[in-house]
Formats: sequence, C-alpha cells, structure tokens
Amino acid sequence: MAQSYFQSLFNSIADGGRDLIARNVRKSDRSGADRVVELCRALLTSRGEAAGAVLAREALEAYAALEDAEKPKLFYRLVVEFCPPEIEVTKAADAYRAAPTPANLAALVRASEPPRRELLRRLNMAPGGTAALVAMRQEVLAQMKERPELNALDEDLQHLFVSWFNRGFLELRRIDWHTPAVVLEKLIAYEAVHEIDGWEDLRRRLAADRRCFAFFHPALPDEPLIFVQVALVKGMADRVQPLIARHAEVKDPKQADTAVFYSISNCQSGLKGISFGNFLIKQVAAELQDELPNIKTFVTLSPVPGFRRWLDQEAKRDADVAQVHAAVEELGLADWQDEGGVAHLKEPLTQLGAWYLTRVKSGRLPLDPVARFHLGNGARLERVNWRGDVSAKGVRGACGLMVNYLYRLDQVERNHETFVNERKVVASRAVEQLAKASIPARKEVKEAKEAKKTDKADKAEKGEPQPGATPAHAD
Amino acid sequence: MAQSYFQSLFNSIADGGRDLIARNVRKSDRSGADRVVELCRALLTSRGEAAGAVLAREALEAYAALEDAEKPKLFYRLVVEFCPPEIEVTKAADAYRAAPTPANLAALVRASEPPRRELLRRLNMAPGGTAALVAMRQEVLAQMKERPELNALDEDLQHLFVSWFNRGFLELRRIDWHTPAVVLEKLIAYEAVHEIDGWEDLRRRLAADRRCFAFFHPALPDEPLIFVQVALVKGMADRVQPLIARHAEVKDPKQADTAVFYSISNCQSGLKGISFGNFLIKQVAAELQDELPNIKTFVTLSPVPGFRRWLDQEAKRDADVAQVHAAVEELGLADWQDEGGVAHLKEPLTQLGAWYLTRVKSGRLPLDPVARFHLGNGARLERVNWRGDVSAKGVRGACGLMVNYLYRLDQVERNHETFVNERKVVASRAVEQLAKASIPARKEVKEAKEAKKTDKADKAEKGEPQPGATPAHAD
Amino acid sequence: MAQSYFQSLFNSIADGGRDLIARNVRKSDRSGADRVVELCRALLTSRGEAAGAVLAREALEAYAALEDAEKPKLFYRLVVEFCPPEIEVTKAADAYRAAPTPANLAALVRASEPPRRELLRRLNMAPGGTAALVAMRQEVLAQMKERPELNALDEDLQHLFVSWFNRGFLELRRIDWHTPAVVLEKLIAYEAVHEIDGWEDLRRRLAADRRCFAFFHPALPDEPLIFVQVALVKGMADRVQPLIARHAEVKDPKQADTAVFYSISNCQSGLKGISFGNFLIKQVAAELQDELPNIKTFVTLSPVPGFRRWLDQEAKRDADVAQVHAAVEELGLADWQDEGGVAHLKEPLTQLGAWYLTRVKSGRLPLDPVARFHLGNGARLERVNWRGDVSAKGVRGACGLMVNYLYRLDQVERNHETFVNERKVVASRAVEQLAKASIPARKEVKEAKEAKKTDKADKAEKGEPQPGATPAHAD
Amino acid sequence: MAQSYFQSLFNSIADGGRDLIARNVRKSDRSGADRVVELCRALLTSRGEAAGAVLAREALEAYAALEDAEKPKLFYRLVVEFCPPEIEVTKAADAYRAAPTPANLAALVRASEPPRRELLRRLNMAPGGTAALVAMRQEVLAQMKERPELNALDEDLQHLFVSWFNRGFLELRRIDWHTPAVVLEKLIAYEAVHEIDGWEDLRRRLAADRRCFAFFHPALPDEPLIFVQVALVKGMADRVQPLIARHAEVKDPKQADTAVFYSISNCQSGLKGISFGNFLIKQVAAELQDELPNIKTFVTLSPVPGFRRWLDQEAKRDADVAQVHAAVEELGLADWQDEGGVAHLKEPLTQLGAWYLTRVKSGRLPLDPVARFHLGNGARLERVNWRGDVSAKGVRGACGLMVNYLYRLDQVERNHETFVNERKVVASRAVEQLAKASIPARKEVKEAKEAKKTDKADKAEKGEPQPGATPAHAD
Repeated sequence: MAQSYFQSLFNSIADGGRDLIARNVRKSDRSGADRVVELCRALLTSRGEAAGAVLAREALEAYAALEDAEKPKLFYRLVVEFCPPEIEVTKAADAYRAAPTPANLAALVRASEPPRRELLRRLNMAPGGTAALVAMRQEVLAQMKERPELNALDEDLQHLFVSWFNRGFLELRRIDWHTPAVVLEKLIAYEAVHEIDGWEDLRRRLAADRRCFAFFHPALPDEPLIFVQVALVKGMADRVQPLIARHAEVKDPKQADTAVFYSISNCQSGLKGISFGNFLIKQVAAELQDELPNIKTFVTLSPVPGFRRWLDQEAKRDADVAQVHAAVEELGLADWQDEGGVAHLKEPLTQLGAWYLTRVKSGRLPLDPVARFHLGNGARLERVNWRGDVSAKGVRGACGLMVNYLYRLDQVERNHETFVNERKVVASRAVEQLAKASIPARKEVKEAKEAKKTDKADKAEKGEPQPGATPAHAD
Repeated sequence: MAQSYFQSLFNSIADGGRDLIARNVRKSDRSGADRVVELCRALLTSRGEAAGAVLAREALEAYAALEDAEKPKLFYRLVVEFCPPEIEVTKAADAYRAAPTPANLAALVRASEPPRRELLRRLNMAPGGTAALVAMRQEVLAQMKERPELNALDEDLQHLFVSWFNRGFLELRRIDWHTPAVVLEKLIAYEAVHEIDGWEDLRRRLAADRRCFAFFHPALPDEPLIFVQVALVKGMADRVQPLIARHAEVKDPKQADTAVFYSISNCQSGLKGISFGNFLIKQVAAELQDELPNIKTFVTLSPVPGFRRWLDQEAKRDADVAQVHAAVEELGLADWQDEGGVAHLKEPLTQLGAWYLTRVKSGRLPLDPVARFHLGNGARLERVNWRGDVSAKGVRGACGLMVNYLYRLDQVERNHETFVNERKVVASRAVEQLAKASIPARKEVKEAKEAKKTDKADKAEKGEPQPGATPAHAD
Repeated sequence: MAQSYFQSLFNSIADGGRDLIARNVRKSDRSGADRVVELCRALLTSRGEAAGAVLAREALEAYAALEDAEKPKLFYRLVVEFCPPEIEVTKAADAYRAAPTPANLAALVRASEPPRRELLRRLNMAPGGTAALVAMRQEVLAQMKERPELNALDEDLQHLFVSWFNRGFLELRRIDWHTPAVVLEKLIAYEAVHEIDGWEDLRRRLAADRRCFAFFHPALPDEPLIFVQVALVKGMADRVQPLIARHAEVKDPKQADTAVFYSISNCQSGLKGISFGNFLIKQVAAELQDELPNIKTFVTLSPVPGFRRWLDQEAKRDADVAQVHAAVEELGLADWQDEGGVAHLKEPLTQLGAWYLTRVKSGRLPLDPVARFHLGNGARLERVNWRGDVSAKGVRGACGLMVNYLYRLDQVERNHETFVNERKVVASRAVEQLAKASIPARKEVKEAKEAKKTDKADKAEKGEPQPGATPAHAD
Repeated sequence: MAQSYFQSLFNSIADGGRDLIARNVRKSDRSGADRVVELCRALLTSRGEAAGAVLAREALEAYAALEDAEKPKLFYRLVVEFCPPEIEVTKAADAYRAAPTPANLAALVRASEPPRRELLRRLNMAPGGTAALVAMRQEVLAQMKERPELNALDEDLQHLFVSWFNRGFLELRRIDWHTPAVVLEKLIAYEAVHEIDGWEDLRRRLAADRRCFAFFHPALPDEPLIFVQVALVKGMADRVQPLIARHAEVKDPKQADTAVFYSISNCQSGLKGISFGNFLIKQVAAELQDELPNIKTFVTLSPVPGFRRWLDQEAKRDADVAQVHAAVEELGLADWQDEGGVAHLKEPLTQLGAWYLTRVKSGRLPLDPVARFHLGNGARLERVNWRGDVSAKGVRGACGLMVNYLYRLDQVERNHETFVNERKVVASRAVEQLAKASIPARKEVKEAKEAKKTDKADKAEKGEPQPGATPAHAD
C-alpha cells in the first residue's frame, strides 16, 4: 500500500513541488556523479518532508542511471564532502577533553557524526530506498578492495544497517510451494552451497519432507536475507547427494527423527557483516520442535571448504601426507562416484579431516570457516563423513568430506562458552579418536616421546593453542 | 509468528542457556536498578546471539519490574557508566586533529559512540523490545525536566528511533470499522483534540462519510503512531460540533467535495521529536484523491490553542482590547451555545484572531503552535471561523474560534518555501482583511501616520518580522 | 475484491446493458410486489450472465425497497407463480410410474423442481445476494406462522441453504480483541444466553483466559453464523456470574485445566434448521486441546430453560411439589443473591432439577431443549448446580439451576449412540442419585411397591419411555 | 485453518468415534466398491455430525483407493441403489395430480429427490471433499460415453455444483509473479490454447505488460476454475506468436491502448457445464478499465478451431473451394513461417474464413464453437487475421487464421440480444465485405440472379437462417 500512496503523492505534487525543486536544483545542467551529489546536497538541506521524499527518489534515480565509471567518483565525493566541519569537531573534542562528562560526550558524538549518515537516512524515504541502499553498499564493498578510502562510507552504511536490520525487526517465514514465485526464484538465484537447478529441482527441495525458512525485513518484503534448507530424515544423514536428488522419494515427515540443515545461504551481499545465521538455526530448530515433536536431533550436513587447500600445503611439509595427497591427485571425478574406487583413502583422509577441523587454527580459531561458524554458534563437531559430497565441488574442495555439526539446544550455550573462552573445539569422542589416529597426530606423539627422552620436557600437555592439544569433547 | 518462535526458543534453551547465564549473572543477589545494570553489562559483553536475546528479555523484564523510585537511579547509571573509555576518545580526537581525514573521522565516530547505543540496540532483540524502549523514553522524558543530565540517554534513544522509525519503514493504514478492536481502542485513548466518548462515538467517526488514517511501524503492529480524522462534506466546514455529533446523518461520500482534517493526534509520547505529521496529511490527501475524485478541496478545521492566553495578555496592554476581553469574561459557557448571545463579539474577536495568527510571533515563527505546524507544512491560512468550537475546551482556549488551513498539493511546496525562507504567513485575502481591521492593526496605522507626521520616518514598510508587517497572501 | 469488481462492472455496462433492460422491463410502470415479480421473471428468462447479475441486483433492490405490507403479496406470488407446468410434472410422473428407472426418476426430479429455485440461485449472483436471501427467509419464517402456504418458498430457501452452508464450506475462526469491530459488535447483538452489556463487557469476555470461536461462510465474511464462548478455569465451574463478571481477575490460561462452554448463540435466524452447533463444540474442543495441552476437561455450563415452567405444571398435580413451589414463589430476586436466603430449597430443587432433566420427556426425547441438544450431541449430564445463575433470567426460568454437560471426545460417539438408539439420558452417578431422591421418584417407588403388593405386576421394569425408567450413567 | 482443525478433530475422536464406527461398519470384510457403498450407507444414516465427517472421510479415502475397474461398478450402484422408495414417489405424484398445489408439489419434490444428493452433500463435509467430488465427476463424465445410465449420477453432481459454484461465491483474483507457485504450476498444466513451456515461459506471460485473472472458489483455494490471459499492447494485435514469444520486450502498460484476451482456459473438467467464461471477460475488462484508464479497446485474439475441418468438407462440394484447398494441402509448416510463401492464399482463405464464421451454422448458431461463445457473449466479430497463428496447431486447425472479437461494454447487451433473438452474427463491415467476396458468396449471388431470371422468385430476401443471409453489422 505504502508504495501506491507514494505514487499518488509523487504524482500529486508533481506540478507544484517538483517544478519548484526544478527552480533550485533542476535548472542545473550537471550530470553523472555531479548531479547525484547536487541532489544529495539539496536533500540534506531540504526542510519539507514531502520535498525530501521527492528529492530522495530523484537522487536514487540519478544514482541508478549512473554509468559504472561514475560510481567511484560519486562514492569518493560522498566520503570527503559529506563530513562535519572540522572546527566543530575539534571544538567539541576540546570541550570533552576539558570535562569528559556525558553531556560533552554527547555533544562530541553529535558534532562528529558525518552528515552523510543523515543523508543516507533521508535517501531511505524514497520508495524502494532500503533496497537501493543495500545495493549501493554491494558496489561500495566491491570497490573497497582497490579503494580503501571508501571504508568511511561503508562504515556509515553498515552502521545504519545494523540498526535497521536489528533482529527485533526480522521476520522468520517458512518457504514452501505456497510461497510466491517472486520469492522462490530468489532461492534458485541465491543458493550458494548446493546449486538448485531450476524449478523442478526447487519443488523437490520444498516437498513434504523438507523445510525451508528465511529471515525477511518489512522493507524488503520479497527479498529473503538468509535462508536455510532442512531435510527431515531418519538418522543423521551422512551424504548430501541423496538429500538433493530431484527424484528422491518423498517420505512422511512424521516418521522422521532428525532435521538435517544441509544448506545456509546469505542472500544480500550488501548486508555483509550483519549477522543473521547464528540465530536462524536455533530459531528454526525451535520451530521444528514445535511442529514435529518426533524430531529429536538437529544436525547440519556441512562442507569442509578449506580442507583440500590445507592438504595441498601440508603435503609439501610432510612426506606421509604427501603420499596420501599423491593418491588423491591420481583420482578423477568418476572414481569418487564409486564406493570401491576410493576405499583405500577413506581411513587416512577422514583422519586428516578430523585433524584439520579440530587442531588447525588461524589465530586462536579454527582455520575452516564453516567450523568456525558452527562451533562459535555452540554446535558440536559430531561426525566426519566419507564421500559426503562427491560432486565436482565437494571433491575439489574437500576430497568429498562432509561434517555433521550437532545442535543440542540445551548445550549450545555451554559449548559456545567453552569455544569462546577456552578456545576448545567441542567434538564427539569419535571425531576425537579419528584426529588422534591421523598422520600428524601420530607424528606428534612420536616427537613428544623422543623429546621426552632427550630433555624430559613434556610439551604435549600444555593445552589447546598448540597443534595437538586435547580439544573438549562431550558425549 | 516471530513472537511464538521466540517463545519456543526461550523455552527450548531454558534448561541449558539460562541456567548457564545463571551461573554467571544470576547467582548475584542484586536487585532493583543494580540488577538491571548487571544484566545490561552481561548483554553488552555476550557474544552468542541467542544468549543475547535471552539476556535482553531478562533485562527488560527486570526493568519492567522496577519500582518507580529505582528508575532515576537506573537512568543515571546508564548515562554515566555506559560511556566509552575517555582515553580512547581523546586519542581518536588527537589523531583527527592531527589529520582530519575521513578515516580519522570515522575512527573518532567509532571511538566516541557510547556503548549505551549498542546496549539499546541489543535490548531491541527481546520480544516486545521496541515497545519497551519507546516506553522507556517516555519515562526518561518525564524525568528530564528535573534531571537534565538524562539528556544523553534521551539523545541515544532518539538517535535510534530516528533510524528505526524512518519514513521508509512506516505503513499508512486506513482505520475503519473493519479494524481490530485492539487498534480502535487506542484511538479512543489517544484522541487528543476532540475527545472520543466511547465506542458509539467512535463508530460515527468511522462511518461512510468519515475517514481515518494512521501510520504504523512493523515492530508495533497494534500501535498507531499518529492518526488523522477526516470528514467528507460539502463545502469547507466552519464548525466542529456538527462534524463530531454522534447522531449526525451519514452522507454519501461520493457527493462530498471537501475533505476536512479535523483532528491529528500523536499517540506515542516516547517518540517525541520524531515527526510523522507533516507527511501524513499530504499522503492522506493523495490517497483520498485517488479513492474519491469528487473531493477537490483539502482543508483542516483546526483549533487556535494560544489565542485566549494571548488575548489575556494583550488586554493588559491595550485598553480597547481590554474592553473586548471584559465582554468575553462576562459570558458563561451556555451563552456560547446560542448564535445571538455572542453576536456582538463576532467582529472584534475574529479580527483579533486573524491578527493573532498572522502577526503575533515567537521569534520568527507564529506564536500559535498549530499555525506553526500547518504553515510550516505548506498550508495556507484560509478562514477564521466564528463559534467554530463552542465546547468548554474551545471556548476556554480560543473564544470558540477555529481555523481552516488549506492544503493545495500543487502549492504546498511554494507556500512552505515562502514560509521558511521569507517567514511570511501565507493567508487568504479574507483573513488578511480581517487582520487589517483589527484593533491592533488600526492602532498601528494610526501610530504610523502620527509618526510620519512627526519625523517622517516610515516604520510600517520594514517587512514581516515586526508585528504588523504585511504577510503574503495568495488567492 | 469481488465487490469492487462488481461495482466497476455495473457502472461500465450502465449505459449499455441497463438502458437495454430498461427498454424491456423498465418502461413498465409497475411498482411494489408486482415490480419485483416482473424483475424476477426477466431474471429467470435472461440468458446473458452479465445482464443476469444486473437484473439480480435490481430485483433485490426492489425487494429491499418494498413496504412491509407488500411482502406477503410477493411471497405468495413466488409460491404460486414460479411453479413448473403441471402437465410436464404429471407426464414425468406417469413415465416414472410406468418404468421407475433412475433415468425416469431423474427426469421427474428435473420436471418437478420449481423454477423458483433457479430464480433464487440467480438472485444470489447479485452483490450481497446471499445476505439478502438469508434476510428474506427470516421474513418468510416470521410470516409462516400465519400463512402456512409460504412453506413451499421456505422449503426452497432451506434447500439452497443446506447446500450453500454445507459444513465443508464453513470456516472456524477465533474471535478475540484482534477481531474487527464490525464482527465484534455482532457478538454484542446476537449473544442470546448471557447478555453482553457493551464493549467493556465484551472485552472481558475476550480476555486471555477466555476463548470465543465462530463459524463463518465466505459469502458473509463479517457475519458469524454461530459462536461459542469458553472460560478457561481451574475445576468445573458451577456458577455463571463469576465467569461473566466484568472485573473478574484475568488468570493465566496455562494454569487452567478445564474449558467451560458457557454460551452458544445462533446468529442468523434466516438459517434456522441448518445446524452448526453440534459440530462447533467438538471442533473447538479439538482446537483448544491443540493450543493448551493443559486443558483436560471440556464441559458446558448450561441453562435449564424449561425447568420452572415444568415445575409450575407439576405443582398443580402433586401436593409435595406444590409445597416447594409455594416456597419458591415467596422469594424475591434479592433473596437469591444470598446463599443463606435460599439454602432450605437447595435439596428439593436440585433433586427436582435432576428428575426433570433425566426423566421428563417430550415424546422419546428430553423435554428440556438444551438437554436435548447436548445429550443428542454425545455429552453426559454431569452435574446440577445450585444457584448457578441468579440473574433475573436464571431465577425466572430455572430457579437459578445450571447444568454441566461433559464432553469427552473419546465417548461422545458412544453416548450419542446410546442416546439415539436406546433413548437413554447419559448422566453421572451423582445426578442419577439426585434424581432418585426427588419427590416424584420417591413417590414412584412407593406406588410401585403398593402396586406390587396388589397385583404383582412389575411396571417399573418396562424400559425407558415411561417416567422413572433408569437412565444410563457412566463414570 | 479448517483443515488443521479437522485434523485435530479426527485425531481426537479416533479412539472413541472411529472404534465405534468400526464396531458397526468396520468389522465388515468387504472391499472395493462394496466397501465404499457400505460406508456411504452408514454416512447417509448417521445422525451425529462428527461421526458423519469421519465417515465422509473414510468413504472418500476408500473411493480414492479403488482400482479403476471397480469404479464403474460403484457408480452404477450409486445410480440404482440410492433412489427414493418408488411407492413414496408415486404416492406424492398421485397427490399432486389430484391437487396440483404448491404444497403438493413441494411434497413431490421432497419425495423424489434421490438420497444420493444428500449423500453427496454429506461427502462434502470431509476435508478436501469438494475437490474429491469434482474429481469424481470427471471420472463419471469419462465413463458416461459408454455408460449412459450414469447420467443420473452426473446430473446430481452437476445440480450440486451449480449451487456450490454459484457466481456469488466465486472470487476473481489476479495472477502474477507474486502468486504462490502451487497456483502458478496449474496455469502451466491447464493452459489449453497456447501451451506454456515451463516457468520461464510463464514468467513472460505474467510480466508487467500482461495480465492474468482467474476465478477461484473458497473450497478450492489453490485451484483456478478458469483463467484468462491478456496482453496490453498498442493497437489490436493480429498475430499471437509475438504475444507469447518468451523474449518479447516488456513494454510499459501505461502506454498501451488495447487489452487483447488471447487465451481462456477452463481448468476443471469435473465442472463441465457450469459456465464461468462469459462473465470472466467482462469482469476482467471492467477491472482493467479501473486500473488502466488508458486501455480503450477490449478485444480477443481467438482461434477458429473448426475452419479447416469445414474447408475439407466444403472442398468436396465445390470445385473452386477445392482448388484453394489443394493449394493449402501443398504447403508444409515451414512455408507458413514466411509471409511470402503463402501470400497467394491470403485473399481466398480470409474470405472463406469470414464466410465460415458469419454464415455457416449448426442449427441456428454458428458452427464454430469459439464464435458461438464470444458472439453469444455479446462480442462483435471484428477482424479476420491472416497468419494469426502459424504454429503447427494453428495451421492444422485453421490455416493460420485468427479472429478478433471486440467487447464494447456499452454494446455487449445489445449485441447479445441481437444474436440470441435474431440469430444474427454481429460483425464489422470489413468482415462482412470479406465474406461477401468469398467463393460461396459470389456463387450464391450468381445463382440468385439466375433463379430470379427463371421464375422471378426472390429467395435472397428471406432472412438469416439460410446460408447467405445478411448478418447484422455495426461500426
């Protein structure tokens, strides 16, 4: 409704308001970025809200019409020109230094907030403003790699989005075959983990023994922000291909005992850094528990995206690993399709996978980004699955390994705390044993013994930051 | 839906998550404001979002349970304790002073933002968080009169609300007899201009020849933020009593030619300073134009809340006005009910009313707050109505005067600009003539003539800031 | 939507279609019932559907404009003039008699269906047609008492309504404070058992520890067909006044263990004979069980509308009963408000109540209409409550008695069968014992003994139709 | 909602009600059609509604589980066994014959209505009952070709559906990309005129310059009953391929002046004979006029399904036509794709097409079924389009001809009347001239002249039923 009102309004004041604006702003023969900046200035100084809404729309239209080459120029001008007066900022800073009271702090905050933020808030008044700003940030982020000076603009956008996309404003919606096509087509477009190959594929993913949930924001009613796909099955699934097979038989969800979260996809790259995912899984789990009391286990079936890259590196440092690596190199994609063709690699690779996930860190956190996400989220590393994903992508990235992370709602907080405070990977006993049987683990033990022999020093007991430390496990 | 999910979630993690939090926070035997502060600290440092949502709820529950006497204490602690480290702020300020680049500015903005803002954003994650924070600001505002130091907290809340209640997120909804009772009862409660006396009264106000529209925010689905009441009539209404009479005959809205906006009420005192009204009227006008092309005129029927107070003052300074004032004083409410009983005062009072509205200023703006609102909004002061409101309130506040402000969508921007830039009250020729015939105007002319005689100086031409300057008018 | 389309359509073809119809039908200067009949004939013979819809609307408008005196005339003409040709009917009947095949039966059905039915179906195409026809039947029913010949019209309407209001098309909706006022006001208007005294009263009846459900039909979206009011309480309520007290404390529904159905009201007298009620209670019970697993008992708190009338009669035939009756007659309404003031009547009256409900029949069914309804529905007569309803109405109709009928979903079918097939009132042991201790029961026993003595004939064993037979009971 | 309530209810009374039914009905070891008949009998005699709903569901489930070979048997038993007692029917018929009063007629109607109708009404109480009955009729219709005795069952179903699917209960909904996939997939399945080749094709058909509307019934919320596809274009479209090309540029609907109805498809073959189409076009036209005042012309682009068949026949009777026909026979589908390849046939074929449409009748109505539909609907035969549809289907059925039927809302009633009463095809002057220039027309004129010469008799003036009569035309 809001949309059509806007329409009426804009039409209504076209003769009056817009002509007036024309007198001031439109007579300009500027174009491109200059034109957008000019409209932004007008918007920022306008006092009538109706005029503001019109200007906001014109500015966003002018922005949408920009040629690609003009955008960096615009972004740069937004960064450098929409700043507060230096003198005001330093004056407020001096006052605060002299007396760091809450009032003086508030004055400093006020003085230093870039007018750009107010500009962005006003742009949001245009119809479709929120979507346009999210898209704008997507472009800012893309350019930031080469132009770090755009960071200030990105920071303002992110600051606004953190406010606007506050959890309290998001709505969890179930997605199924009753969902409008305009939303469904976005699942096809945004699915990032296991590609959806058209509408027939999608239909299977939304059948009676599947669930899909997404977060939405009221200002983007047709745009999922993030969505998760769940398979309701018997027992903890260890392979993804059967879950996403288009012609898989549809089972009765009342007979299932396990919900397998097999794909989570962020949809809006312009919302990077605004986290939705950690909340989503738990909320969906709670929802499923409500709908289907027969579901007792909530578990992911997740990729191990960094495993193969790590293995490539490790092979250069360790001759035994190199042997395994060479055997992997010999295989073609076809070999992976057959259980027998790769059976000889099952043991060493699953062990190395367990090692990689539990011991290999980047700083104090696991190197693997998916592990980092779920463990930080309070899940437990439950199982390493051999031939979990034998698609080209799964083989290329992780020698076909997939992992189950287990979410027990009554333990996520404790696990989360253990992970955050003690930096321990919470893993099942089985994964732990796999890791201990791996090549690097055996080597460590051997080295430790030898070290003990030589200088009686016992390094292996020191705790978790070093490779080889004992992770927490819980059964 | 979100609500019930929350419920499930909270129940689900009750055994785990909350017990865990208990270990840290609950073992405390603090209570009152101390307890709330403690929970706020925990919330601000928590890293798991689910834990965050639980803590947010607990903090708001603890706040809701506070005794009134504890609240000032809490607010004060929020102001003084949730500030950034002074050393960080001054360091960032120094860096900015040394090199006032956008990056350094961004760093200063980051460093000086009070953690209180992040705290408030996190509190919003609780179910009902937005409503709770709006209610909290209501209390902060109430206490600020005596405790100006709470301003910093108010400023943070307002800063958040400006973002959250951005025009782009509001939804205009029509209110009628098909609206849920939970919303309708709020109209009865919040109507601030012409009291609604129960459900039967309300029903008449929502009948076929009336319209009511309100702005809503998705996070407060049952709470109108502001609403406007409109009567669809033939000709510009000059009296309010017939419009709000419970038993007034319901006319066919297709026969009407005029929409009379006879009441605008803000609903949420916690949203003070976040303006919705100036946009509302124009958007409703656009909507009505769309629904009923037969409506050609959009006009208010507005009170003149400051007239009587001004008259009381003026009577002390001017003997002629004092005479009129004395005649007014002699009347009882009953006299006003009858046309004849007050006929002798019609001329002087309407003239004084016109003078008051067009010439009497506070600073550069009209003294009358309603005039300030509509004129600033781009409306034209169209007509002063004798015996427009003969209720006790209308007589007490404005000797029964009411005013029509005319909204012509094709002129609002021009009027607005004239009003803002030239500080001219845009009034019809008729109102202008009334004002010129008023006691103070005649006196001015006389004085001017005498002044001219004595020292040839012509004060009367100097322009609009002085009382008596010629306002703009447009016909 | 349909409505507004209709509107557009009617407007669109106004110049063409309606003028055309005018040529044929409108040139007529008929009025009143004649005019309606004329339009009905045109409608019945029209072949274009659009023209049909226009004619349907005109006919219903003409009907709505009829003066009351014209309506009987119209109804009579509908009865006698919209019949099939006698010759066709008898021809079809002869063919059937000669060969009673399904085909000949079908032909007879076709030949004998009055064109009036098709007329009524076509009238339904007008906007608001269904509502108009339901209202029409209300008037037909009102007149039928004096004009039994209208029965044929009533039968046609009822026949259509049975089809249109089939259970499969009804929607059960929960009614609460989120329901539109246009529906809520109908609860106030239609509540037939315990009057709702305005909106504040209604609000209490829809509070958190109350439930209200209604059946709706898609063609009457704002009109409840029947609704039931439920109180969620602890223990089986025995008095209605505390349940409907406006200021009764609102309790937590999660603490309740019993759902008390304390009022069921039919809303549309034009739908008389189309039963909704027996299904409603069970469906609501199922719904409550789903929402609140803590609710274990589903029970009514029902009036005994025929008790006092029966008592008045019985007092004339039985001297002992006459004594009780005389004591009742002495009391004023005020006496009933106080426990003590009527304590002496508790025993005899509750016993007589139990007797009345379990033994007194009209034909083979209980004389009391409410008992007939719930027992036929499969409920059990659970308890007779002293001073259950001490309002004027409750005292006047039933000496304040109220009854709990118990619905156990796992027994309703068996109870229903017992009631229907064996004509036994299914009652609890307690009610049974009350009945056996009543004056008439004691008298019967005495008479039986004496009869036994004299002629050894045992009348008391003969079964249930006679007063005094043993009803079934179940604990 | 209704659905889930049902679910709860059925589950709730499973232990009680269904076991009880089991005692009576389930102990039977019957199966197949016998079992269904048994359940139907139980349903028809059951008195408790809840039991009824359970039995209705069981009966429909048993029906759904029938093997195909059992269905004819079931249908036959429904026809012969669920009839009223012959003696009651003849008694009522006798009474009517003796005194054919409305009351006796009503009694006869009552006595002769087959219990089968009540059975069908009760089956509708089951969840999904309406859909099941519509599907059942589809099967009855399929078998009726070989088993005319099933007609009585079909007649009962149709009689019910005419009541249930009364225009007053249908809802017109716009279908677009915001419509749930569960509905959209049915468009793909049901489109009968110009096949939709998958989702991408569908998306183009629902783009901004297209419209699609369908009628829905509340009991079949996801099932369109009939839908129409409209292209918004400039000028009256003469070829369908550009309208349905997947990659056709999307134009601004505000620039269009014409709405082209290029496809109407009935969806439910079980609703055969219940007409929706004639109303749909006019209602959609009214709706479009409301949304887009720029649309001035409402026209179809329709196939001429019977043309080629007629041409084949005509070629056998007329040597000149045979020559044209032979030329057609020589062409392959590829030739039709090119303007030039078939140019030599344009004149004779469009003339023959015009002749076929305006003069060739079946009885008193046009032979062509599409012409019959639109002309009966009040449209005017506006234009015959050469190479309107050069798909295999279009060439095969009508030598590529397509026709525009023009709907002028202000003339449909007059046209309809002309068509119905005078049996004249209302055609434009251009079509009329084409027809007059055709081979058969020229031959008629020649024959007429010769006839005149010989016996002075003037046959050509006799009017319209004979081939060659002057049709009405209107410009």
